[in-house]
Amino acid sequence: MTDHEYMQLAVSCAKKAKGFTSPNPCVGAVVVKNDIVVGTGFHRAAGLPHAEVEAIEDAGVNARGATIYVTLEPCNHFGKTPPCTHKILDAGIRKVVVGCKDPNPFVSGGGIQYLQDKGVQVVSGVLEQQTRTLIEDFIWYVQNNQTPFVILKCASTLDGQTATSTGDSKWITNAESREYVHQIRHETDAILVGSGTLHSDNPSLTARIEGQKTKDPVRIILDTHLTIKKDAKVLTQKSDAKTIIVTGPGISKEKIKAFETDRVQVMAVSLKGQRLDLNELMIKLGKISILSVLIEGGSTLAGVALRSGIVNKMMFFMAPKFLGGSDGYPVFAGTGPKLIKDAFVLKNMDVRQFGSDILVQGYLK
Amino acid sequence: MTDHEYMQLAVSCAKKAKGFTSPNPCVGAVVVKNDIVVGTGFHRAAGLPHAEVEAIEDAGVNARGATIYVTLEPCNHFGKTPPCTHKILDAGIRKVVVGCKDPNPFVSGGGIQYLQDKGVQVVSGVLEQQTRTLIEDFIWYVQNNQTPFVILKCASTLDGQTATSTGDSKWITNAESREYVHQIRHETDAILVGSGTLHSDNPSLTARIEGQKTKDPVRIILDTHLTIKKDAKVLTQKSDAKTIIVTGPGISKEKIKAFETDRVQVMAVSLKGQRLDLNELMIKLGKISILSVLIEGGSTLAGVALRSGIVNKMMFFMAPKFLGGSDGYPVFAGTGPKLIKDAFVLKNMDVRQFGSDILVQGYLK
Repeated sequence: MTDHEYMQLAVSCAKKAKGFTSPNPCVGAVVVKNDIVVGTGFHRAAGLPHAEVEAIEDAGVNARGATIYVTLEPCNHFGKTPPCTHKILDAGIRKVVVGCKDPNPFVSGGGIQYLQDKGVQVVSGVLEQQTRTLIEDFIWYVQNNQTPFVILKCASTLDGQTATSTGDSKWITNAESREYVHQIRHETDAILVGSGTLHSDNPSLTARIEGQKTKDPVRIILDTHLTIKKDAKVLTQKSDAKTIIVTGPGISKEKIKAFETDRVQVMAVSLKGQRLDLNELMIKLGKISILSVLIEGGSTLAGVALRSGIVNKMMFFMAPKFLGGSDGYPVFAGTGPKLIKDAFVLKNMDVRQFGSDILVQGYLK
Repeated sequence: MTDHEYMQLAVSCAKKAKGFTSPNPCVGAVVVKNDIVVGTGFHRAAGLPHAEVEAIEDAGVNARGATIYVTLEPCNHFGKTPPCTHKILDAGIRKVVVGCKDPNPFVSGGGIQYLQDKGVQVVSGVLEQQTRTLIEDFIWYVQNNQTPFVILKCASTLDGQTATSTGDSKWITNAESREYVHQIRHETDAILVGSGTLHSDNPSLTARIEGQKTKDPVRIILDTHLTIKKDAKVLTQKSDAKTIIVTGPGISKEKIKAFETDRVQVMAVSLKGQRLDLNELMIKLGKISILSVLIEGGSTLAGVALRSGIVNKMMFFMAPKFLGGSDGYPVFAGTGPKLIKDAFVLKNMDVRQFGSDILVQGYLK
């Protein structure tokens, strides 16, 4: 097998824990000796061993003289666990193949340099794009003042409508698309909706995939005037994740206290015009170690979020259907640009299908 | 090579003449002897030899004992040319491989039966789907009371808008998409637009592809009250195709006469509500041997056409852009269904990309 193929295996290992490792990135590692995979590992959760440690321990004595493939540059500092560079040296690993360098501007290259100084051969940048995409939320967060990586998910007909004139939206997309959205919820630290969605759908906003262990995202509800009902599912359901209700300023302490529990937090942000300031909210969420946010808004929130400039990535699901009129709910409400040249353009676009649904993904930053 | 591969070659031959053969279908043929292609041919235009005749003459003496691959069942009747079945027998062809049967309900199977009766081996249905799609307009026309096969082409942003609030639409789609539209214009008998597009864009509606010989479609302009300007490009430009102005009833003979030339025809149809009756128009166009119509409408025409039920096939181009508001021009104007379950659903959908533009094609019938 080639370096690329072994790195691909390391990526597969890393993906097993995607969603469980925050605020750490997911990382996978494979130990190879004489063209045989002698150990595999991945970082399971913050506080647990890093991927390199798992893979080296899995390899046992076979690690001596072997090559390790790791999706992210090994750490070289004492955190919750000792540095992986030490573990690699102690195990007698002879060569280290790295996917991408540590994106943290204060750390990048340190692990590689240390290993090279100690006489270990290091190759870096194997499947670099793929290993970077795997942890794109983490990379954004550490390189942009600890603000979260924001994904805006929309679902519409091919003619850009999310519901009919009567509000009917069940179902625009198919079951496969909806399951994939649950996968993304699982992989994301938080999910954000507006109070419109809250009141009309009373959603759970949990991650549910049959036959798969998942992690619920923190639920963030935009609710300027704190109008949420006490029996809303996001307040009452069983979930390991907490719910944050985001209000505007000026809500009384008593009213707030009536909602706060160990699972429910109320967070106030400023208004910008008539709306909650999403830029300020992102800064506040970053401060409480939320690295990624999935916005599943209705027309109003989707439009405001897009135009506020907070969105990193679009996930745009389209069903192979047309409403054939213009009286339904548009995917984005509000005022668009006057000229096509000022439209929001997707970069690095990727098109895939879930059954006959189409998912167009791409980046705005 | 396999039967499929030789048939693929015959399909490629047929495609060379797509757009030039109406009211005949495009057909391709390949003569193969001892696994060597000894002759190829295609039907170039109505009145000229059929594909089988071209391929057999190309093969010359090598046709004796050979196999012929032909995308459409050979004809067995005297039309503008003698029956191809006779040519095949006379040439000593031993085996005939057919893509699809003649779709004409009164002719289908006749050529195959005749050849089999004369001792020629016949295999039918090789690449059947592909050979049928190649002539889908012809098949629809002969099987549906000679009404044209209607393609509705739309181009929008991912959020379903065809222009900004100021009407700016240059360019939603990219140059590759626009060139492909010219290919479809070339392949289609007629192109249809509304007077809105006429007055705002003064379009040529010709088929222009650099480095390729093309055929202009007949231009059909919906113009209920005959408001077209005398110097509109569709009336004054040089083109081998004529222009048909479709009006409502009650336009004076004098006014009509002022427009009619050997290249410009005025056609009246009834009104249905306030709009020209598109179903009646399609029947009238079928009667003058227009087998296929490409609608390149604005929001109003696209919506009316879709809801009138005349559309066979959708060609939906999307640019990787969002306007991010709802104040632009929607791809379909008018009233949509109240429930998602009543939306128009694309069948046999196909997704392809032109650069970063996405084309979603599918059928409504």
